[in-house]
Amino acid sequence: MSTEAYAVIMAGGSGTRFWPASRRDRPKQLLALGPTGEIMLAATVRRIERVIPAANILIVTSATLAEATRAAVPHLASDQVLAEPVGRNTAPCVAWAAATVSRRNPDGVLAVLPADHHIGDEDEYARVLERAIAAAADGDMVTVGLQPNRPETGYGYIEVGEPIAKGVHRARRFVEKPNRQRAEQFLAAGGYLWNSGMFFFRADRVLASIRVHLPRIGAAMDEIDAAAGRGEEASTVERLYPDLPSVSIDHGIMEKADRVAVVPADFGWSDLGSWISAWELAAHDEADNVLPPDGLAVASRRSFARVPAGKLVALVGVEDILIVDTEDALLVVHKDCAQDVREIVARLEARNDGRT
Amino acid sequence: MSTEAYAVIMAGGSGTRFWPASRRDRPKQLLALGPTGEIMLAATVRRIERVIPAANILIVTSATLAEATRAAVPHLASDQVLAEPVGRNTAPCVAWAAATVSRRNPDGVLAVLPADHHIGDEDEYARVLERAIAAAADGDMVTVGLQPNRPETGYGYIEVGEPIAKGVHRARRFVEKPNRQRAEQFLAAGGYLWNSGMFFFRADRVLASIRVHLPRIGAAMDEIDAAAGRGEEASTVERLYPDLPSVSIDHGIMEKADRVAVVPADFGWSDLGSWISAWELAAHDEADNVLPPDGLAVASRRSFARVPAGKLVALVGVEDILIVDTEDALLVVHKDCAQDVREIVARLEARNDGRT
Repeated sequence: MSTEAYAVIMAGGSGTRFWPASRRDRPKQLLALGPTGEIMLAATVRRIERVIPAANILIVTSATLAEATRAAVPHLASDQVLAEPVGRNTAPCVAWAAATVSRRNPDGVLAVLPADHHIGDEDEYARVLERAIAAAADGDMVTVGLQPNRPETGYGYIEVGEPIAKGVHRARRFVEKPNRQRAEQFLAAGGYLWNSGMFFFRADRVLASIRVHLPRIGAAMDEIDAAAGRGEEASTVERLYPDLPSVSIDHGIMEKADRVAVVPADFGWSDLGSWISAWELAAHDEADNVLPPDGLAVASRRSFARVPAGKLVALVGVEDILIVDTEDALLVVHKDCAQDVREIVARLEARNDGRT
Repeated sequence: MSTEAYAVIMAGGSGTRFWPASRRDRPKQLLALGPTGEIMLAATVRRIERVIPAANILIVTSATLAEATRAAVPHLASDQVLAEPVGRNTAPCVAWAAATVSRRNPDGVLAVLPADHHIGDEDEYARVLERAIAAAADGDMVTVGLQPNRPETGYGYIEVGEPIAKGVHRARRFVEKPNRQRAEQFLAAGGYLWNSGMFFFRADRVLASIRVHLPRIGAAMDEIDAAAGRGEEASTVERLYPDLPSVSIDHGIMEKADRVAVVPADFGWSDLGSWISAWELAAHDEADNVLPPDGLAVASRRSFARVPAGKLVALVGVEDILIVDTEDALLVVHKDCAQDVREIVARLEARNDGRT
């Protein structure tokens, strides 16, 4: 059987943890945050193209970000970027992409991938994609499970079952984000992997599941399919989307499906959850600082500074400080509080300050 | 006797502790660093004008700063700013100003004042100036001694002698910057005041002292006087200045003079020695932060941020951090290291970086 694979890159995020670099109109996936200096989405597309042809890549984003998204991957055709009129979590996003693929090839396999993660080992990543696509072509609902290296409470876990093929296991169950104690138990016990948010399934298989478990979304997709035949897809999406339930593909489909498989993986993954990740992934100087090439540090350690091109940054006597400077806003945050950058964005929104 | 007083504002400083706001072509006295938001030099002139008419104010600065200095006090005439071709410490500066005053009025009293200090109680400051001018008119060499409130090792001290008039004492001796132990002894003993660097004397009296104690400078002043009569002052200054000895008015004259008096004072003085002073003097929020009006602080304490107009600054989880942002350079320094900002300037100079 010849498998035709399609990538569905979920690029609708509007995270606030990378403020002030990230803004409503320029969220994380449109920024260069990792060590390669590439825009996150562009790096994701480049990695995927090693396994899936560029013409088979779809990117789903919000209507407000569609133009900036297309500009970030100019070699893709305009209609490879699907623009959701409103965000409704990941299930409608995957359903629409699956319907789009199904009209071209119902047997096509979807690789649903986040736009804004960092991958350290791209060779291994390519091998994992191929393995997961092959398992999905056989009819499984496949996820990638990442080898945990700390008792992380911010991710969901997958309990690994018996092997079903080389590098592929039955997934016994999905586990919600655990508390610290359970996360430590998972790490000690082994056999639990982080849910990567990467999913692989045949278009016809996921659409069938959606019709069973998420019938309103299924019905909407049938209507969109019919409209596409009349050249009225965009207006139909515009009309139907606001009424779709907001539900994740994890909860809505994967946790209810049978024949769920997991491909264990370890490819230097990071979800780049905050500026701390940007510091961790970048090249450090001898005092573990991450600065632009002409930056100066005196008696400073484990700190990070990102400033506009050509600007000089100088640190004196600071430790564990993250500095992000842009044209109109400057953030200085202690590493212990990197998650609390969201509080700044919340305060700006509360006072109708446009710099969010 | 009617006393005509002249102010001589020493504005040749080129400090580096306020980098990156201060630069070679825009040193501390040309910046607004105090709580009033005025340029330091302009505030100094404004305070002095309560006691001395504007036409009697002279400002001595370097030739490279003359234009910017005149721009900072546009209501003064151009020839009220004396431009030294090279810096030779304060004795030549005072000598030249004294010679300039002496040509107008040999009995004129000079009030020699720093350009870049902060004065909290301007009423008391005016009273002290009047008292010191009156004592100088009687023929004394007068200094202002500031009531110490900590065992400061960065200033010289003056030992106070017997009273000679209301609010005026004989100065027993000048004491060099002491070590910590001696500074603590001075504070405990009482009777020791900080040397403010403010001096008052009649023009003829200080010129006579200069001829005795600093004869090369005295001879140069005679030559400059003669040249001034021929309209050739500027070229003569240009020719003579580089060969003058570099010596302070404290060491060169005051410490050797007889009839030295001190006016004890307590007028909310600060020499604004570093960004810590700027933080100390400004209005604090409830967490002791000093931020622009639209700045945001979350879980942050005792910190300071100065950014270009219109720019937003946000602090999260930082304590005792000083932040100074300009168009082309950003400094983040811990308060414990505020003096070490000079190290940054030294490193920039060492690599011929123009941003000093």
